[in-house]
Amino acid sequence: LSLCNMSDPWQECMDFCVEVTKRAGKVICEALQKDITVMQKSSPVDLVTETDQKVERLIISSIKEKYPTHSFIGEESVAAGAPSVLTDNPTWIIDPIDGTTNFVHRFPFVSVSIGFTVKKEIEFGIVYSCVEDKMYTARKGKGAFCNGDPIKVSGQEDISKSLVLTEMGFKEDPEHFKRMLANIRTILTIPVHGIRSPGSTAVNMCLVACGSADAYYHMGIHCWDMAGGAAVVSEAGGVIVDISGESLWNERSTFSKTVTNIGGGQSGKKTLPLPAYFLKHF
Amino acid sequence: LSLCNMSDPWQECMDFCVEVTKRAGKVICEALQKDITVMQKSSPVDLVTETDQKVERLIISSIKEKYPTHSFIGEESVAAGAPSVLTDNPTWIIDPIDGTTNFVHRFPFVSVSIGFTVKKEIEFGIVYSCVEDKMYTARKGKGAFCNGDPIKVSGQEDISKSLVLTEMGFKEDPEHFKRMLANIRTILTIPVHGIRSPGSTAVNMCLVACGSADAYYHMGIHCWDMAGGAAVVSEAGGVIVDISGESLWNERSTFSKTVTNIGGGQSGKKTLPLPAYFLKHF
Repeated sequence: LSLCNMSDPWQECMDFCVEVTKRAGKVICEALQKDITVMQKSSPVDLVTETDQKVERLIISSIKEKYPTHSFIGEESVAAGAPSVLTDNPTWIIDPIDGTTNFVHRFPFVSVSIGFTVKKEIEFGIVYSCVEDKMYTARKGKGAFCNGDPIKVSGQEDISKSLVLTEMGFKEDPEHFKRMLANIRTILTIPVHGIRSPGSTAVNMCLVACGSADAYYHMGIHCWDMAGGAAVVSEAGGVIVDISGESLWNERSTFSKTVTNIGGGQSGKKTLPLPAYFLKHF
Repeated sequence: LSLCNMSDPWQECMDFCVEVTKRAGKVICEALQKDITVMQKSSPVDLVTETDQKVERLIISSIKEKYPTHSFIGEESVAAGAPSVLTDNPTWIIDPIDGTTNFVHRFPFVSVSIGFTVKKEIEFGIVYSCVEDKMYTARKGKGAFCNGDPIKVSGQEDISKSLVLTEMGFKEDPEHFKRMLANIRTILTIPVHGIRSPGSTAVNMCLVACGSADAYYHMGIHCWDMAGGAAVVSEAGGVIVDISGESLWNERSTFSKTVTNIGGGQSGKKTLPLPAYFLKHF
C-alpha cells in the first residue's frame, strides 16, 4: 500500500473522492424522491439552493476531515463570498449539483462534479451522473472510465458528420442572447447531424468523452462547471479549448476565461478540427 | 384467464407487445455494441437502415404469427411503399428505432415505439427506451407506467416555469428552417426555464409523461413517431394537440397532420394552458 501511495500520491485522494461523490449523489437522489406536490408548492429555487449547499457542505467537510491542509473552490462557497483563487496547494474544485434547472424539473441529467488540482494542474476528475448512476473517473495519464469501463472520444474530425451538444437558455443581456441564437443557427446550418441539449455541463463533457456526441460548445462557464469533466474529456482523448484556440487547463488563465469550446478531436494532434471550425465561425 | 380476456380483450396483445418490444430493444442494443471503428468505417446510414429494417421485420413477423388478421403501419414498410392507412381493424403502428441520429452516434436515447389501435382509437402504447432500459406502458383508461411504476405529467400550467423539449435539425427547406429557428427564439424569450433536446420523439413524450419536462413542441411528425408515446402521455394525464388546438388522437385526420404540440397540461380541463400558449405564438 505504501509503495502504491509512493508511486501515485493522489490515487488515495481519488478513491476517497469517488466514495464522497457517491454519497453526495445519494443525497441528491433522495431530494429528487420528495413528493412532487411538496416540491411544487415550495419554491423550487429554495429547494435547489438548500440541496446544493447541503451537498457542498457534505463534500467539503468529509474531505477536510481527511485532508485538513487542502484547499477548496466550490460553487456555493464562492457564491457565499469565498475566494475563487487557484494556488499550487492541492485543491478540490466542486460543483455539488451540476444541472440545477434539470434538478428542479427532475430532468434526468444531474451530476456531482469534482476536479482535483496540484500545482494548478488537474490530477483527477470525477463526474457522477447520479440519476443515471454513471460514475465517470479520470486520473491524469491513466485514461477515462465510466463505471469502470474505459471510454474514449469518437475521433470524428468532420464537423458535418457530428452530433453537437450545446446549451440554450434565455439571457437577460440582449447582446449575449442574440449571439447565442446566432451560434445555434451557425451550428445547425453547417449543417451538423444534430444538436442535443441535455442541460448539464459536466454530463455534456462526459457524453463527448464517451463518443456519444462529437463536440460540445458552451458560451460562459465557471471553473467548477468544468473541472471534473475536463479531466474526463482529456483522458478520453479529447481537447478543451477556448475560442482563442488555447487549452483551458494548462494555464492560470483558466479561472478568468468564461467562453469555451469542448471538442472531441483526438489528442496528440496539432490540428483540432472541431474547435478550429468553431474558431472560424464564432 | 378467459374471463380476464373477456373483460379486456386487448390486454393479451399488450403483454405480447411488451415482450416483442423488449426483444427488439435487445437487437438494437447489440447493434450499438458493435466495435465503434467498424461502425465508423461502414456507412452509419447503412447500419441504421439495416438495423431499422431488421427490427421492424422482427416485430411484424412475431405479431403476424400470433395475430394473423391484424394490420400494420411501420416506418420502414411505408418507406418501402406500403400504404399508411388507418382502418377499424386492429392495427399496430410501429417505429422500430425512434431516434436514428442518436442511434448512429450512440447518444443514449433510442427507443422502440408501438401504438395499437382498434376502430382508429389507441388501445395501448409501449415505448421502450432500450439504452436506459426504461419500459413505458399505457393501457387506455388504466394509467401510464415506467418499469411498472405509475407516472404522471407535472401539471405545470405556467409556461414561464416550464422546461420545454423540442428538436433542432437543419432543414433543406429554407422557409421551414427559418420558422424552426424563429420558434426556438420564441420559446426561449417567453422566457421558459430551459429548452432540452434529447433527440427521440417517443422518449420526449415519455419525459413529459413522467413530469421530467412540462411540454414538448415538435414541427413535423409521423404517426409512427407518436403512436406509442401518445398513449403514454394521455394516460399520464397529458394532452396532445395540433396547432389548431384539436386533439390528435380522436379523429381520422391524425394521419395527415404533421405539426403538433405535445403539452403536459392536465387532462379533463377545458383549457390546455401550454398548447394554448403555443397556439397563440406559432
